[in-house]
Amino acid sequence: MKRILVIGCGLIGTSFAMALARYPSEFEVHGTDSNLRHLQIALQTSAFQQVFTTTEQLQSGYYDVVVLAIPVRAACSFLLRALELAPIVFDVCSVKTSICATAKQSPEWERFAPTHPMAGKSEEGPQGASETLFENKPWLYIDGWPATLQVLPIILKTGAIPIRLDSQHMHDTAMATVSHGIHLVSLAAMSAYGRAVQETGQMYAHLSGPGFKDITRLSESPIAFWVETLMENRTAVMHHLLRVKAVLNDFTTALESEDEFRLAELLEEAKKFHEDWQGGREAWHLR
Amino acid sequence: MKRILVIGCGLIGTSFAMALARYPSEFEVHGTDSNLRHLQIALQTSAFQQVFTTTEQLQSGYYDVVVLAIPVRAACSFLLRALELAPIVFDVCSVKTSICATAKQSPEWERFAPTHPMAGKSEEGPQGASETLFENKPWLYIDGWPATLQVLPIILKTGAIPIRLDSQHMHDTAMATVSHGIHLVSLAAMSAYGRAVQETGQMYAHLSGPGFKDITRLSESPIAFWVETLMENRTAVMHHLLRVKAVLNDFTTALESEDEFRLAELLEEAKKFHEDWQGGREAWHLR
Repeated sequence: MKRILVIGCGLIGTSFAMALARYPSEFEVHGTDSNLRHLQIALQTSAFQQVFTTTEQLQSGYYDVVVLAIPVRAACSFLLRALELAPIVFDVCSVKTSICATAKQSPEWERFAPTHPMAGKSEEGPQGASETLFENKPWLYIDGWPATLQVLPIILKTGAIPIRLDSQHMHDTAMATVSHGIHLVSLAAMSAYGRAVQETGQMYAHLSGPGFKDITRLSESPIAFWVETLMENRTAVMHHLLRVKAVLNDFTTALESEDEFRLAELLEEAKKFHEDWQGGREAWHLR
Repeated sequence: MKRILVIGCGLIGTSFAMALARYPSEFEVHGTDSNLRHLQIALQTSAFQQVFTTTEQLQSGYYDVVVLAIPVRAACSFLLRALELAPIVFDVCSVKTSICATAKQSPEWERFAPTHPMAGKSEEGPQGASETLFENKPWLYIDGWPATLQVLPIILKTGAIPIRLDSQHMHDTAMATVSHGIHLVSLAAMSAYGRAVQETGQMYAHLSGPGFKDITRLSESPIAFWVETLMENRTAVMHHLLRVKAVLNDFTTALESEDEFRLAELLEEAKKFHEDWQGGREAWHLR
């Protein structure tokens, strides 16, 4: 029987507890959150045997594992305290460089495993939590952190697919490319439209189709989470935005010089990359 | 009984014929296409009473209306000939400035109506055609073209919702904002990813989620159609790309200066625009 303490009963923390609650003889899960509303909803799921509004009353030595299911900066701040509470600690943050750097400052860093479940919902908080949130979704972990060996058997219980990445730096570069940079592109499409509406005083909403809807939809996402995520990963994100702007500049140059051959080449390039991407996904899912 | 000649039996031309074929006592529809494969599929729909591989054998005086359902440049080239074939001509192209300019060069321009059904599919050609393709979709027309009065009753038969725009210029600006510019943003997201994969030699496809999939999906679109569309509307498209790049630069500046307040403001801006856009759509659908 493993005793697990989940710090943060939001969407990820509560879904994680619910996934483990399917194995009542294997896990005892406690939760803590300073948000009482979240704690109440988390309690109603019956996934937590106990919940606490503060971590102060918790005793060292009771837990086997502490899970940091809080935003990355809070996770960095709480990491040392977490390492006092249990022999193994892991986090679930979507940016890894800063928490890994924080961990490395401690002589106890080998008891920490940086991980990142790639599962989410546009709805924040435990009300959207589900025991199958992680089912068949990638759960990333980073090479070179020995505590991962203790953590992986627990992660596997959620139905997630563990994927190893070489380093925290590589993780953050990958995220800038497949997620954080993409996020800002979606918002840029939305704001460019909004600014055009303001500039021209025209209403275009009724003229937009399904493409517009899909491309701009990430603008709905929660602000606070994204400000922190983007800021923590700003170097890699800025680097990726340079790439996006380079492609946009290529389009502009082709249009400006009325170079149809070049424009066609750029459209083919995107189509080819899309095919490769799809092929890559399929190959991976077939394994 | 109206006799209608559809020039171009692709997705739009064939769907249009199929929509009218629901009223066999009101319309006789003929079609023409130099692509024999398209013509064959179009014939199989039974929506065309006759089809022709060339327009040369067609006699002036038989048709009431000619529909130009071909790419915009071909439509421009064929416009004068079409005005000889029937008293009323309309087109369905997604860019309007060039065809309107072509029409205005003729003393017969008042017999031409520029229109644009906002309906489509990623699959090209008549094989994707459907009698309900235009159902509840906007079908744009331009103020100041008297022939529109004769065309609108036919358009209404397709189930489309006619929307008036002030001018061809306004149409093309609107399209750059809701469609053509958005298209290039989606492709830029895809190519930026592809170039990152090439640069880093890493595989990221298995790490991408539903956001990535939605934002990049327009890269699959047919090349030839888009090269022509983007080139024909290049001035408005370039202007819109400037707006997109301005927003991306705003993001970069906020990240670079670690200005979280500003970054949050930019994320709020996009969210607010998205809400306004949704509100605008809903208000319009409620009318």
